[in-house]
Amino acid sequence: MSQETVKDRAVTVEEARKIILDLPLKTLQSERIPIEEAYHRILSEDIYSQENLPGFKRSTMDGYAVCSADTFGASESLPVYLNIKGTIKMGMPAEIKINRGEAAEIPTGGMLPEGTDAVVMYEHTTRISDALVEILKPVAPGENIVMEDEDVRAGQVVLRKGHRLRAHDIGALAGIGITEVNVYKKPVVSIISTGDEIVPPAEPLSPGQVRDINSYNLYGLINQHGGVAVKKGIIRDEYSILRRVVEEALNDSNMVLITGGSSVGTRDYVSRIIDELGAPGVLFHRVTIKPGKPLIGGRINNTPVFGLPGHPVAVTVCFDNFVLPLLRRLTGENTRAYLPDSRTVKARVTHNLSSPIGREDHVRVKIEQRNGSLWAIPILGKSGLITTLVEADGIIVIPQHSSGIYEGDEVDVRLF
Amino acid sequence: MSQETVKDRAVTVEEARKIILDLPLKTLQSERIPIEEAYHRILSEDIYSQENLPGFKRSTMDGYAVCSADTFGASESLPVYLNIKGTIKMGMPAEIKINRGEAAEIPTGGMLPEGTDAVVMYEHTTRISDALVEILKPVAPGENIVMEDEDVRAGQVVLRKGHRLRAHDIGALAGIGITEVNVYKKPVVSIISTGDEIVPPAEPLSPGQVRDINSYNLYGLINQHGGVAVKKGIIRDEYSILRRVVEEALNDSNMVLITGGSSVGTRDYVSRIIDELGAPGVLFHRVTIKPGKPLIGGRINNTPVFGLPGHPVAVTVCFDNFVLPLLRRLTGENTRAYLPDSRTVKARVTHNLSSPIGREDHVRVKIEQRNGSLWAIPILGKSGLITTLVEADGIIVIPQHSSGIYEGDEVDVRLF
Repeated sequence: MSQETVKDRAVTVEEARKIILDLPLKTLQSERIPIEEAYHRILSEDIYSQENLPGFKRSTMDGYAVCSADTFGASESLPVYLNIKGTIKMGMPAEIKINRGEAAEIPTGGMLPEGTDAVVMYEHTTRISDALVEILKPVAPGENIVMEDEDVRAGQVVLRKGHRLRAHDIGALAGIGITEVNVYKKPVVSIISTGDEIVPPAEPLSPGQVRDINSYNLYGLINQHGGVAVKKGIIRDEYSILRRVVEEALNDSNMVLITGGSSVGTRDYVSRIIDELGAPGVLFHRVTIKPGKPLIGGRINNTPVFGLPGHPVAVTVCFDNFVLPLLRRLTGENTRAYLPDSRTVKARVTHNLSSPIGREDHVRVKIEQRNGSLWAIPILGKSGLITTLVEADGIIVIPQHSSGIYEGDEVDVRLF
Repeated sequence: MSQETVKDRAVTVEEARKIILDLPLKTLQSERIPIEEAYHRILSEDIYSQENLPGFKRSTMDGYAVCSADTFGASESLPVYLNIKGTIKMGMPAEIKINRGEAAEIPTGGMLPEGTDAVVMYEHTTRISDALVEILKPVAPGENIVMEDEDVRAGQVVLRKGHRLRAHDIGALAGIGITEVNVYKKPVVSIISTGDEIVPPAEPLSPGQVRDINSYNLYGLINQHGGVAVKKGIIRDEYSILRRVVEEALNDSNMVLITGGSSVGTRDYVSRIIDELGAPGVLFHRVTIKPGKPLIGGRINNTPVFGLPGHPVAVTVCFDNFVLPLLRRLTGENTRAYLPDSRTVKARVTHNLSSPIGREDHVRVKIEQRNGSLWAIPILGKSGLITTLVEADGIIVIPQHSSGIYEGDEVDVRLF
């Protein structure tokens, strides 16, 4: 049923996700940027090393570079004596040559001089004079050193296309001498707020009006997850105006989010516009989730479009469950479904929570520690919309096939 | 022992953390910024609402606004008939007055007209004509509505000082009409790279040289966790030069990180400089952790200073375990230790891992899914430093009092 339209019934969360994950998307564009700006960006190319690294035999200890064969049999009671030929300087080529019976003092990271194949740590030596050292323990060939190509071999793939660059990956790029990379352009996500009652936050409220919460919430969520959010403003609940704004948004967006249409009239406009502006149009228009049931999912040619409910809590739930998986696809990231996309914590619920079979309930909770255990306190009721937004630490899910959770049950809390 | 200096032995991870969490810090500075820029910033003031919200009785359903008493006893078989006096428009004051026996059509979010105290959903009505509606189910006073001050009361604290603003918190601020907030200034963290062998990533390597990995890693980690990273460059391993750069960094930083001093000589410089530039100086100079043992922790007057090991993997471990808890304090965030500060996942280890008692081992792992279970594959050996950096998905910890983990044991993986 992946690309079919489901209009006769509410789809399940699983069905909606499958539809979303099967959506064909526009080819992603790339841009070339310096690594300093590439933190958390997604590679659009495989990265190869141009050279062997470290490129020279390198000591991993402070001590003496030796020919290991000279140390065989050395012990505290029967030390081996080696002549000190010189000292290796950090960051400099090792210009001395060590013959059998000789050694060179070497710092961690220093280059092994010719004729040596191992390093004896200071701890296993006694310095007898400027020119002589006692070796108290044997070293094997290669001990306490890194070989020329042991870190990276020339031609080796270091990072793959689709990888999200973490701080230490940028460090690794610097390490192999790469200062610019090709990454996917960030997907542009337009936010259209609808509703004749919605006013900008700076305005005083007249009776009947509420301020725009959803654009501010979505703006942060989109940017936080690798997109570029573009606010298209608060649009009057009028078919022709909304249609024109959606059409404009389609020109410069990888995804369009329309929030606010909870009332029947607006929902009808939004569905009609999605259907009219391109195929296949609306793919589903209700989901068995609470909050978030009135979610409309669609595709206008190659651009995914969501009609999000007007309720701010439902917006967060719909974002996390439906918009985010798609946004991550749009970023070009190679995700692995078995790795969590947010912080989670286990806690016990403080109240019984019932939930009808056939609906997936998402319940906001506050986390408290009591006598060393974590408890998840459900934030219930219609009341205090804004208060419940700010009070919650995370969300728990009562699955579709469950009739509820009992007090004391352990649950996974997805943290905000 | 909180502020004492421990120089005679390596401190445990727990001791090091306690020292770090007890450090006195400079008073944090604030700045006033628009909410559009306040995502993930830390509030430096309590936020109060100036007004009741929604500020009017608001419908939570599409239906008819009624006087609830008129509906008592209504049923499918014995409906109540009400005269429709008009329709409430979204975003407009409800200008009609409803008398007993009357109703007004109302959309979700609409303002209840005078004389009404509840809303009957469309589903429980039958429209008989333009002027008449059948009510099939009673509603209680307050049903399907939000009261004037039910969302937020004027004077109520909505968000507390020290709170990290999440996307929906910014939405809530917009909702109560707040467009600017006071937040703590981001702490400035200076990064000083030492080592005569270190060259910038753009440079070709001569024998004996390696490129600067650590500044790039730390730069990303600091910015990602709410700090402002400032790179002070790659500094030659010379006491007087390093001392001058640290001194300069102290002037404009809330924390100073010196990386690279793994060799004995450099470590001695770093310790001496931390001791000389202000009291109390070095607080500990070895920790029973692997990797990361040569970590130096200190305080120069009111500025925390770390001497981080030169090994890039040790840098990440030391950052996560010691620098990050301090950085979070410096941001002014009210953290709760029982909530995880990163994504985690449970997995089984694929190999036995031994670890000496008395040392906390941090082992990088790759996660794979095999037959539906997650496995953590340890990335071992000195080899492939850069490769192991990029291959790891996260880190597992073998606690100080454990002698190891066995193949098949379940572990918590802290994901990068």
